[in-house]
Amino acid sequence: MSGATRIELSRLNSAEPAEFMAGLGDLYEHAPWVARAAMARRPFASLDALQESMKSVVQRASPDERVALIRGHPELAVRAAENAKLSDDSQKEQASAGLDHLSSEDLARFQQLNAAYRQKFDMPFIICVRRHTKDSILRQFERRLQNTRAAEIEAALDEIFRIVALRLDQRIAAPDRLSVHGHLSTHVLDIHSGHPAEGMTIELLELAENGSGQPIVKDVTNRDGRTSEPLIAGRPLPIGRYELRFHVAAYFARLEARQSNPAFLDIVPVRFAIAEPEGVYHVPLLVTPWSYSTYRGS
Amino acid sequence: MSGATRIELSRLNSAEPAEFMAGLGDLYEHAPWVARAAMARRPFASLDALQESMKSVVQRASPDERVALIRGHPELAVRAAENAKLSDDSQKEQASAGLDHLSSEDLARFQQLNAAYRQKFDMPFIICVRRHTKDSILRQFERRLQNTRAAEIEAALDEIFRIVALRLDQRIAAPDRLSVHGHLSTHVLDIHSGHPAEGMTIELLELAENGSGQPIVKDVTNRDGRTSEPLIAGRPLPIGRYELRFHVAAYFARLEARQSNPAFLDIVPVRFAIAEPEGVYHVPLLVTPWSYSTYRGS
Amino acid sequence: MSGATRIELSRLNSAEPAEFMAGLGDLYEHAPWVARAAMARRPFASLDALQESMKSVVQRASPDERVALIRGHPELAVRAAENAKLSDDSQKEQASAGLDHLSSEDLARFQQLNAAYRQKFDMPFIICVRRHTKDSILRQFERRLQNTRAAEIEAALDEIFRIVALRLDQRIAAPDRLSVHGHLSTHVLDIHSGHPAEGMTIELLELAENGSGQPIVKDVTNRDGRTSEPLIAGRPLPIGRYELRFHVAAYFARLEARQSNPAFLDIVPVRFAIAEPEGVYHVPLLVTPWSYSTYRGS
Amino acid sequence: MSGATRIELSRLNSAEPAEFMAGLGDLYEHAPWVARAAMARRPFASLDALQESMKSVVQRASPDERVALIRGHPELAVRAAENAKLSDDSQKEQASAGLDHLSSEDLARFQQLNAAYRQKFDMPFIICVRRHTKDSILRQFERRLQNTRAAEIEAALDEIFRIVALRLDQRIAAPDRLSVHGHLSTHVLDIHSGHPAEGMTIELLELAENGSGQPIVKDVTNRDGRTSEPLIAGRPLPIGRYELRFHVAAYFARLEARQSNPAFLDIVPVRFAIAEPEGVYHVPLLVTPWSYSTYRGS
Repeated sequence: MSGATRIELSRLNSAEPAEFMAGLGDLYEHAPWVARAAMARRPFASLDALQESMKSVVQRASPDERVALIRGHPELAVRAAENAKLSDDSQKEQASAGLDHLSSEDLARFQQLNAAYRQKFDMPFIICVRRHTKDSILRQFERRLQNTRAAEIEAALDEIFRIVALRLDQRIAAPDRLSVHGHLSTHVLDIHSGHPAEGMTIELLELAENGSGQPIVKDVTNRDGRTSEPLIAGRPLPIGRYELRFHVAAYFARLEARQSNPAFLDIVPVRFAIAEPEGVYHVPLLVTPWSYSTYRGS
Repeated sequence: MSGATRIELSRLNSAEPAEFMAGLGDLYEHAPWVARAAMARRPFASLDALQESMKSVVQRASPDERVALIRGHPELAVRAAENAKLSDDSQKEQASAGLDHLSSEDLARFQQLNAAYRQKFDMPFIICVRRHTKDSILRQFERRLQNTRAAEIEAALDEIFRIVALRLDQRIAAPDRLSVHGHLSTHVLDIHSGHPAEGMTIELLELAENGSGQPIVKDVTNRDGRTSEPLIAGRPLPIGRYELRFHVAAYFARLEARQSNPAFLDIVPVRFAIAEPEGVYHVPLLVTPWSYSTYRGS
Repeated sequence: MSGATRIELSRLNSAEPAEFMAGLGDLYEHAPWVARAAMARRPFASLDALQESMKSVVQRASPDERVALIRGHPELAVRAAENAKLSDDSQKEQASAGLDHLSSEDLARFQQLNAAYRQKFDMPFIICVRRHTKDSILRQFERRLQNTRAAEIEAALDEIFRIVALRLDQRIAAPDRLSVHGHLSTHVLDIHSGHPAEGMTIELLELAENGSGQPIVKDVTNRDGRTSEPLIAGRPLPIGRYELRFHVAAYFARLEARQSNPAFLDIVPVRFAIAEPEGVYHVPLLVTPWSYSTYRGS
Repeated sequence: MSGATRIELSRLNSAEPAEFMAGLGDLYEHAPWVARAAMARRPFASLDALQESMKSVVQRASPDERVALIRGHPELAVRAAENAKLSDDSQKEQASAGLDHLSSEDLARFQQLNAAYRQKFDMPFIICVRRHTKDSILRQFERRLQNTRAAEIEAALDEIFRIVALRLDQRIAAPDRLSVHGHLSTHVLDIHSGHPAEGMTIELLELAENGSGQPIVKDVTNRDGRTSEPLIAGRPLPIGRYELRFHVAAYFARLEARQSNPAFLDIVPVRFAIAEPEGVYHVPLLVTPWSYSTYRGS
């Protein structure tokens, strides 16, 4: 995912304190004390052990320290001028859900929610943005505003652990991997001809609340009826609604299969939601010029 | 279809000439001579015999008479002021495809095509509007502009015979019916529970070239998983593209079937084209919370 | 079903006692007193009212009378010599499940069960044979042998009411019909070509416990992809397991669709069970040379 | 496949003549001259190059030598006494299609065909047995008896090349593999619950002409809805008809899904043919308690 080279876990295990802190000190936003305390517990047998170790540092910290950790995070969807002040990681994370170029209407909505949240809880709203779309963030925001403060502190820490797990996955190389990635793929089987559909154009769009679609991937199926790469992989699947578009009429026209004019099926839309960012979603199409089936596969 | 009572064919067979001409004189637009010639061939055993008789009057007419018949028809999509001058039948027919309230952009396109057609062929463009949508009329219009004049005269007469068949079907009651109607229906089978899906909201939209949808029907399935009436029946099916929308998540929520949050399938869109206005189109859905199939059924 | 003409309910309502008793006296096996008591409650507005009336006569009879009614019924699957002594209705009913020509092994099993049942309950085992296959009768027989005597008297009377409902349906014509019939049908849709499969051979077999099949119907699909008549209708569907066989390869060979050699699909078997004798079972096939789907439809 | 260790191709390339001939001399049945001529063309860059080299030795041999090569092969399905005289490879190959324990009826049929073939062509009938079932061998036997002698010599040599390719694959280890293996697998997706069906019993049977089934594999699906190993792999798929049996009712009973009694679907049979021994056959099932789909997947 990241262009930067990952540091080997084994190297971190034997690194000088300065090198260790250079690598992990900013993992928890504005809270180098977490990495510092974890450093004393080296060596770590796995990425998972490293993560659990830092997590327990936070869990054993005092209530005030935990709230301070939360307060060290920026608000979501801030204005461009303030955006420049965010940490590098935070900037990229917010960009992943498009929070860096919102419409003025959406920006106003975020500002209003940010203000209401700070007024009620006296801290910023925290969510692991990479697991969401803009719409699912807004839904969570409104839902969580109904919580008690105690519940929100728990929720915020859980989201921070998710943010950190993704950062760890990008920075550290280790034999084990953390379970932070999902997988979305498709497959087209031409059951008219009895073989995978080769050369069919496929598009993936993310759907906004209002039904409009944002293109994510456009590809053409290979000999095995699959796209050259998974539609989404190596990152959490943003919670949200999607549409796959299968260019069926053009495919069967090239095969010279009998179709009506206009073709009964042309571009077939399949709409579905992703609810588990770390899940495996396989959404195939079984198709003839006159029928199709789709399902959540595996 | 029509609120007016149909005249019995048997009554027409024995009617005085004045009554016969009152019933059928304007069937062929501004061409009472067709009905008058056919009147002499009574009695007609069936609607089909009546239609064939009038058709042969036209086919045996001189070339000049046939062109005059064509020229007796109005242009499509004329301005409101001229619209009022159309025959009753023509007004209703043009309204059936929305030609009476076009956007100014569409109106300009029609006027440009009308002018080009009249310039090339010296007669109005004729098409059986009830068998088309606005978009399919425009496609035909552009395609037929490429024809020779001889081919266009044939095409125009064929369309006139289709217009007349539909008018006959609405005016005359007879034991036989002309094959002028199509049939579009759907059916939802809940293969999660093993019975028809009762109480599922279904919408039918007509899709414009640009993908936007015009609502036609909204209904809720009955105990048999069907809509209370066919989606379209008793008229030709306009050639064009359509979208059915099945409200799947709300249906399974009411049954308390396990679904993810958000539901994997919510409103399922099924897009298809109608190519045969007199065809039977059955487009059912077999559905679970995690899969669906659709096909051109019968 | 029956070749005999049905008597009109209205006629029975005004018939002389002798005629009424001639029509219904033997409806309850060897128990003309039921019809006689019901006769006094005439007129009956519907078949349903007539049936309910006779049922309440039985329900208000004394315990001894009810047991006597049960004892008036023959045992199942008696030897040929005794078979001749059965009432006409009983003979036909037993034949409907093949109890009149059992293998010697099956006959022995019935005799053993009959003896055990009589020993335990001092009455014959009663079941509405037309709703069952031989195998499902044997399963019920063994299960009901575990009952208490009180439960068995109730069970036997329920079965008698079912037997009587079927006899009423065959003898009496009335505007309403009793819900005593089921319906089994199929339909083949060729989703390779996009139309109903015409000319496909279909077989229906009833499956015995050991998996062997007894042919019931063999037919060829018509233009609409259906058999000329429902596979079973106008009678209860015998509870049991069935197999439909669709001759797919021969059908697609005639259409000259590309198939492998040997064809991937040849005769497609679909096995299913009927659990509700009065149910509607529609078991269609959606098929290409390389795929098929089936489901309980409606 | 074989318990014996494979020889490395690189080792053969540098082996002494005696070792080379010990490894490959009997590859072509009773024709060490083929290996001997190929030996001079070493080294071979790949298994494929080795096979092509020996093939060209045969193709350049004289007509008499080629017929002698064919005559060096045994007849199919010989009696037990003669069976002991076959080469090891031939014994195992014939056993793979059950030719070593035929019914007396089948044995008589083979003997009659062997005699007719020898009478017409003066050589034994040769077929690559591992690519066939007994039934498909008999069909080929009868078909090929209609050939001319020239066509049969070509057919016999093609079959010998297939036999040799399989033997090479079992004896020699090399980076490349010859395309001599097929792959048969299944997968069960529970589209009632939206996940792979875990714990469903699956059986694979080979079907004889008369419809009876010979068990090949019985397994239970794992968490991914697959069998622990492919149903057939690492060998050619014998041409023939097969039946998969999916124990659907037991699976859904364990999940406590609503089913009728008896269950609408119990053991679901899926019958299909394999026509390409080196093909990839994936035959999945998408299933609910009330429906299923199957298809040739990939």
